[in-house]
Amino acid sequence: MTEPTRSLGCCYYPEHWPRSLWAEDARRMAETGLTWVRIGEFAWSKLEPTPGDLRFDWLDEAIWTLGDAGLRIVLGTPTATPPRWMLDRHPDMLAVDATGHPRKFGSRRHYCFSHAGYAAESDRIVTLLADRYGRNDHVAAWQTDNEYGCHDTTISYSDAARAAFRRWLRARYPGTGNDGDIDALNAAWGNVFWSMEYRDFDEIDLPNLTVTEPNPAHALAFRRFSSDQVVAFNRRQADIIRARSTAPITHNYMGRITDFDHFAVGRDLDFASWDSYPLGFLEDRAGATPDQQRAFARQGDPDFQAFHHDLYRAVGRGRMWVMEQQPGPVNWAPHNPAPLPGMVRLWSWEAFAHGAECVSYFRWRQAPFAQEQLHAGLLRPDSQPAPGLEEAAQVAREIAQAPAVSAKSAEVALIFDYDADAAWAVQPHGAGLSYFGLVLDLYKAMRGLGLSVDILPATTRDFTGYRLIAAPGLMHMPGDLKSALAPAEAEVLIGPRSGARDGEFSIPVPLPPDFPGLDVTIAHIESLRPDCPAPLDQGGAFTGYCETLDGGAKVVERTATGAPALMRAGRVSYLGGWPDPVAARRIIAGLCARAGLDTVELPDGIRRRDTGTERFWFNHTERAVRVAGRDLPPISVTRELL
Amino acid sequence: MTEPTRSLGCCYYPEHWPRSLWAEDARRMAETGLTWVRIGEFAWSKLEPTPGDLRFDWLDEAIWTLGDAGLRIVLGTPTATPPRWMLDRHPDMLAVDATGHPRKFGSRRHYCFSHAGYAAESDRIVTLLADRYGRNDHVAAWQTDNEYGCHDTTISYSDAARAAFRRWLRARYPGTGNDGDIDALNAAWGNVFWSMEYRDFDEIDLPNLTVTEPNPAHALAFRRFSSDQVVAFNRRQADIIRARSTAPITHNYMGRITDFDHFAVGRDLDFASWDSYPLGFLEDRAGATPDQQRAFARQGDPDFQAFHHDLYRAVGRGRMWVMEQQPGPVNWAPHNPAPLPGMVRLWSWEAFAHGAECVSYFRWRQAPFAQEQLHAGLLRPDSQPAPGLEEAAQVAREIAQAPAVSAKSAEVALIFDYDADAAWAVQPHGAGLSYFGLVLDLYKAMRGLGLSVDILPATTRDFTGYRLIAAPGLMHMPGDLKSALAPAEAEVLIGPRSGARDGEFSIPVPLPPDFPGLDVTIAHIESLRPDCPAPLDQGGAFTGYCETLDGGAKVVERTATGAPALMRAGRVSYLGGWPDPVAARRIIAGLCARAGLDTVELPDGIRRRDTGTERFWFNHTERAVRVAGRDLPPISVTRELL
Amino acid sequence: MTEPTRSLGCCYYPEHWPRSLWAEDARRMAETGLTWVRIGEFAWSKLEPTPGDLRFDWLDEAIWTLGDAGLRIVLGTPTATPPRWMLDRHPDMLAVDATGHPRKFGSRRHYCFSHAGYAAESDRIVTLLADRYGRNDHVAAWQTDNEYGCHDTTISYSDAARAAFRRWLRARYPGTGNDGDIDALNAAWGNVFWSMEYRDFDEIDLPNLTVTEPNPAHALAFRRFSSDQVVAFNRRQADIIRARSTAPITHNYMGRITDFDHFAVGRDLDFASWDSYPLGFLEDRAGATPDQQRAFARQGDPDFQAFHHDLYRAVGRGRMWVMEQQPGPVNWAPHNPAPLPGMVRLWSWEAFAHGAECVSYFRWRQAPFAQEQLHAGLLRPDSQPAPGLEEAAQVAREIAQAPAVSAKSAEVALIFDYDADAAWAVQPHGAGLSYFGLVLDLYKAMRGLGLSVDILPATTRDFTGYRLIAAPGLMHMPGDLKSALAPAEAEVLIGPRSGARDGEFSIPVPLPPDFPGLDVTIAHIESLRPDCPAPLDQGGAFTGYCETLDGGAKVVERTATGAPALMRAGRVSYLGGWPDPVAARRIIAGLCARAGLDTVELPDGIRRRDTGTERFWFNHTERAVRVAGRDLPPISVTRELL
Repeated sequence: MTEPTRSLGCCYYPEHWPRSLWAEDARRMAETGLTWVRIGEFAWSKLEPTPGDLRFDWLDEAIWTLGDAGLRIVLGTPTATPPRWMLDRHPDMLAVDATGHPRKFGSRRHYCFSHAGYAAESDRIVTLLADRYGRNDHVAAWQTDNEYGCHDTTISYSDAARAAFRRWLRARYPGTGNDGDIDALNAAWGNVFWSMEYRDFDEIDLPNLTVTEPNPAHALAFRRFSSDQVVAFNRRQADIIRARSTAPITHNYMGRITDFDHFAVGRDLDFASWDSYPLGFLEDRAGATPDQQRAFARQGDPDFQAFHHDLYRAVGRGRMWVMEQQPGPVNWAPHNPAPLPGMVRLWSWEAFAHGAECVSYFRWRQAPFAQEQLHAGLLRPDSQPAPGLEEAAQVAREIAQAPAVSAKSAEVALIFDYDADAAWAVQPHGAGLSYFGLVLDLYKAMRGLGLSVDILPATTRDFTGYRLIAAPGLMHMPGDLKSALAPAEAEVLIGPRSGARDGEFSIPVPLPPDFPGLDVTIAHIESLRPDCPAPLDQGGAFTGYCETLDGGAKVVERTATGAPALMRAGRVSYLGGWPDPVAARRIIAGLCARAGLDTVELPDGIRRRDTGTERFWFNHTERAVRVAGRDLPPISVTRELL
Repeated sequence: MTEPTRSLGCCYYPEHWPRSLWAEDARRMAETGLTWVRIGEFAWSKLEPTPGDLRFDWLDEAIWTLGDAGLRIVLGTPTATPPRWMLDRHPDMLAVDATGHPRKFGSRRHYCFSHAGYAAESDRIVTLLADRYGRNDHVAAWQTDNEYGCHDTTISYSDAARAAFRRWLRARYPGTGNDGDIDALNAAWGNVFWSMEYRDFDEIDLPNLTVTEPNPAHALAFRRFSSDQVVAFNRRQADIIRARSTAPITHNYMGRITDFDHFAVGRDLDFASWDSYPLGFLEDRAGATPDQQRAFARQGDPDFQAFHHDLYRAVGRGRMWVMEQQPGPVNWAPHNPAPLPGMVRLWSWEAFAHGAECVSYFRWRQAPFAQEQLHAGLLRPDSQPAPGLEEAAQVAREIAQAPAVSAKSAEVALIFDYDADAAWAVQPHGAGLSYFGLVLDLYKAMRGLGLSVDILPATTRDFTGYRLIAAPGLMHMPGDLKSALAPAEAEVLIGPRSGARDGEFSIPVPLPPDFPGLDVTIAHIESLRPDCPAPLDQGGAFTGYCETLDGGAKVVERTATGAPALMRAGRVSYLGGWPDPVAARRIIAGLCARAGLDTVELPDGIRRRDTGTERFWFNHTERAVRVAGRDLPPISVTRELL
Repeated sequence: MTEPTRSLGCCYYPEHWPRSLWAEDARRMAETGLTWVRIGEFAWSKLEPTPGDLRFDWLDEAIWTLGDAGLRIVLGTPTATPPRWMLDRHPDMLAVDATGHPRKFGSRRHYCFSHAGYAAESDRIVTLLADRYGRNDHVAAWQTDNEYGCHDTTISYSDAARAAFRRWLRARYPGTGNDGDIDALNAAWGNVFWSMEYRDFDEIDLPNLTVTEPNPAHALAFRRFSSDQVVAFNRRQADIIRARSTAPITHNYMGRITDFDHFAVGRDLDFASWDSYPLGFLEDRAGATPDQQRAFARQGDPDFQAFHHDLYRAVGRGRMWVMEQQPGPVNWAPHNPAPLPGMVRLWSWEAFAHGAECVSYFRWRQAPFAQEQLHAGLLRPDSQPAPGLEEAAQVAREIAQAPAVSAKSAEVALIFDYDADAAWAVQPHGAGLSYFGLVLDLYKAMRGLGLSVDILPATTRDFTGYRLIAAPGLMHMPGDLKSALAPAEAEVLIGPRSGARDGEFSIPVPLPPDFPGLDVTIAHIESLRPDCPAPLDQGGAFTGYCETLDGGAKVVERTATGAPALMRAGRVSYLGGWPDPVAARRIIAGLCARAGLDTVELPDGIRRRDTGTERFWFNHTERAVRVAGRDLPPISVTRELL
């Protein structure tokens, strides 16, 4: 069987069902047109009911049964759900929340990334699995753990985390011998302020429960450390698997989790995947206004999924899956409506349009028990088809009839940097401001102009081929990134807050952005009440955050009070505030015009995306819409060959 | 003296006042027309200032003084307020909150229902009181403890609770010998999900502080256990008293406390009583909209008290008191306005109309000190009359002139089930959804149609005499309840969420409601944003929650999009969502028409209720209202003989 | 050099900068026209990097360098920021929050006022500083600690606090020998209620984590104790310094901190100073409506600073500084906009108009690191001038050209009492009600009528010279205060809630206010929903809180329902509710007319203030405003000689 370029799959839990159902389930999956099935990622208590009592027989049979039906298997490591007996071995393995409470057994992700004992248990179970299934023909991919960071589990205030943080700091501020240089840390953090100076690394505590806010350098260091712990935990699993299997390795990232560096984890993976719950994300995570939430209550934010597809395509260095695709209502959002008919198909094609190789629905059959009993599957608990099943089958048929797929780089690049997100989280300066929100707002402006976008990590140094590069809000910009951007053969948009901090979270002198060839200085900054935007003289406004800009660069836009808002030298533009949608779209459109990029004004809910050979139009609304000479039916996917 | 069918009383704290005031207070109570006086329920520190040093002399005198004035006494056990020295004996007796903090001494209800040592202390003091006053002629009733569950005290996360929970689980899942069957528990809860399987009951912790939500089966089991602990605590007191006294036993339940089974506690009592604070409840507990709160700020929600009267009449198997009736402003609500003139009288008659045998005002005289110093009494702190006193006296005169009372069952039944409330609390599915709210909304619809309603427990199997039975939201419906309802000689309304879970909180297959003779299946469910209701084609809408219904039963109502909303077979109707007030009233009215029940459209604030011989009309508004040919003056009670 | 009556200064941290910058900084300060420089208050880790290793050399040099440039130094004691090593000596010195969590090292103010070991450390470092610099000519004033109470640090639930509270209670309720009289405490608090009686002072715990609210008498006692701990801590520092230096001693109070008695601390100081952050305070502390916050987002509430100036002039017994004046955007409010051009000058002159001797900007140069890196200074981090610098220089020039200053008592007095604020905090009775808010609302009414106001402590007994005295909300009024006010040769306004409690927080009998010569009784009270105000028949309304008044005094105003709202006998008026702005202004205006006081109706944002020789007009708006025959330019200060 040759691997299809675009394929479908589902998530399946054989341990939840009688063995007698497995073969029939497998047959129906294949019949539906699914190619892949992910299994195993929460099954530790069935694999090892008591310590050392290993039970692989059922998994052997499940793999054989599914494989025999022609399905290819993604095998997950079960480390997100250590069994209850693990706590007897490692009573202190639990993560600890910011108020000091251990986060107890009884759900999932109940481990601290810094706990050495649990990391060794992870090594052990992953080794056992990889030894047994590393050469199994049916196991065609591996997934490490499950949704790192979900349920706010990246950051732990445990004793293990404190000890590991001190080690991490010693390594970051190396001294002579084995110890670090505490004076270097004090200087880097500015601990002279408020007499916060340390005499030894062992005096450093975690930055929780302080009387008022901790030193932001301290807080940022702890976030960077916490991110590194996730990277290290994942790398151990990936190394063990890779030594035993040639199948590619992925991790299923969770949407809107930004508290560890997904790019860094991704460097140890073969491809990236993510879990896409458009309705589940809408209310709490997508940052939509109440009006948008109402308008798209049954469709999801049209740009939120797209952003993640583009992000994870970058995390996977070009290779991306949706490992879990919402197939109907979920159970865990504040409100859990059903998708409109056609949305499961639309979401699937949207993922393919953005480069997904596989869209895998979560889950095959709705479980009648436990936490997710109200999470829809492709089947109901009584094995009858749920509405998503036929939409999945339709997509499968459409894939089969579609011509060959060709990927293509976009001409527009948008830099996303997890370290910048951490910096903004440590110091939003104004209530509600986040880096993710700023980047998403610019992404929405691009998408509303019909642009296809590549997201790039801040480690990128070769920008060849791009005609517009936006790097908003990048609080720390290393010198070589500035050097790489300054001569780019593209329009470059930076600001606000670009280069606002050095690598240690101090304000650099000369003042930011200190960008080569751009005579702009952020003289001072302010944050604004939501009801006090700063209007721009060409329309729209800065909201939430704005800067006072000095310098000799050309003033391209001004605020209504005449202050510089957008300044430019050559191809580099600096944006001095957080633009509202009107301003963002105009500014991006202006840059596109300079770059010779084709744009189109798209109404709310209409989006387009190009691959190497196709142009897709998506109508997320319940109305037929005419745009660019085309009639787009309600809730529809329109594919044109380029 | 023969017992009046309707009587008045008050709550009195002789220990708060000089002995010199007692006789005068008693004289004025009798002069006001009060018959009953409740005393003693917070007096432990005066009865036993140090362990074993018993001081009953003052209570002897108080009882004698009050009784001598012709008053009948309700004697409360003081177990809601153990003295400070109790903590020296039982340092671990305090309840523990969900974050693990012991709930300290310094107010009241500072005990964990699972603490064996405190339960023995409760036995001891109750025995002492019952031995001494069990045969006292003046002590004509007993009250156990005070307001179980008030201040969120049903559920405790203490070590004592954990140990008792494990014992409770062993008994629920019995195995061989003394231990339980842990596999049965794992299977029942679906612990295979997320590897939550236990090897032993001692591995089970309380379901707090988990990383994300615990297994709902775990959470529901803990709520059921917690309810059982209250029942057991109360039963010990009732058994002790009953062995020593022939006076009837009650407990004063607190309004809008639903986290233990009041029916189960009630089975150990001779009658039920409750504490009615219409203004105190209005903002936080009655679920009223801001507009309703403003409209009834000085009257209380017209249906909230009525619902509780009907509920506790059921809890008391026909016998109900208001043990504490708000007589003026209280001190503990977010805002504490004074009732409109006439409301104290209206509330009193409303209670009688709903079957109260006694209305007892809390309290006789406002205390100048401590937590409730701003809680009005019938007297001011300076012993001058407060506004409530004359209204109480008026009610006393009216009672004396009224003809004999006759109770009568209603023709409309509404099932209320504490276990269903717990199930919804564990899994509301949508923010803000509660079982109590759903039942209250249907009750409001019934009351707005002028119906008198009996509330029934879900243990009812004989529905003889009812012409309309509503059982909304009953997530678990035992088979014999379905069997009892299916052939009822009444219109039966079930749904939404009826029978949605088996007894272990799993979704049953065949899918719900699986009701005999009714070909309706809940294909899937969803919860809705408050600003995204699902309109019904006959007007009104489903809000918050709705279901997709399949099956061959007749579709009586549809949503605006054509989906079945109300389905029916014979006399059984299934409602597929949470109806807004317009829909709820129409649907109930339609069922009444089918059942031949007389209805009347009542405006907001106008309510009527029938007893065996009387029809009462209540106008809660400040406007004269003409309804059904009658002119109802502002804030008025109109009584007609049937 | 003679001391100027009005002067400017700044806050400077030599330890944050290379020594090479100090002389140039000093020169530029002097050049700007600054006279004072405050240093040292957070420098403990630089003065004593490890215990006992004292490093005064750098401070010697800093003082010499600054003094040599002609600057006078305010030297702060560094006790708000004990170094990390202090925790090794005193692990239990941290304050504990209401949920029992120690408030950890890592920011500032991480000490409990009740910890004896830390108090001794405070003695030690203050003694060392005073010994070394007590006779230094350049050190012209001392500041104790920094912003007592900031970050909610007055109240601590530590073990040290519990032990000290018991000692404090024993002293308050003295018995025979060394122990207190526990029966006196039980009687005073009304502990008979809910069996809260104690047998010994060691049974008394802190009033946190109780099941429901603690006894308000208990809670108030703990607040009084906590306030006394701050007073005692400060007094130790003041006594040590005063024994070693003739320079005056101050403390820099933080705005809108009311949880300790600033007057009591002030009695140990030579003058008061406070830290004025008009924009920082606007959103969370000034109680402004969203509309006002938007209108004055870049100016601050026009009355909030003025109130504090008047308050601290009273705390300093006539002598007041602004020790920290916001010079640009701050970093710590929910949103941090920049002041409008001219506001730094306006704020400075406003302070002088209200009697400030010195306005000291915080800070000289913006720090590029640590918690306040986004707090503007007079200089940017790169030492370039920030916008505030030129405004400060302008004020300096204007001071130099201004005629001699003459202070004058106002004719209007407003009593502010920290104990009353504590009483309202313990028992607001209605959500959102606070004593501070009530007093500020009346102050706003006065200021809107153009009145200059003296704030007086409740300990005042000589009211000579005042023509209007307002004492709203004074829950406890000692008899001699009533006696001092009753015969005042002024209009006296009391109520609501005046004299509502005795000194132990019981309702007195006869009922309040029990004011000599005034036949008014508060029959009962109520609190109101914000959307249910009680309209007054002359316009405006009571909001939030109102009383039912009885008695024979003249009814001056009534509610729309005819109930007495304002009653009067002779010159004493009792106000029976919380007046909205319309009512407050009318009532104050009426009293002014009776008192023969000149008033003027000032629009929003326009304020005036008189000194002995000058009349100032301030326009806080961006519009030119004509008032009383004058044209006031936008954002302007207009000074007229009287």
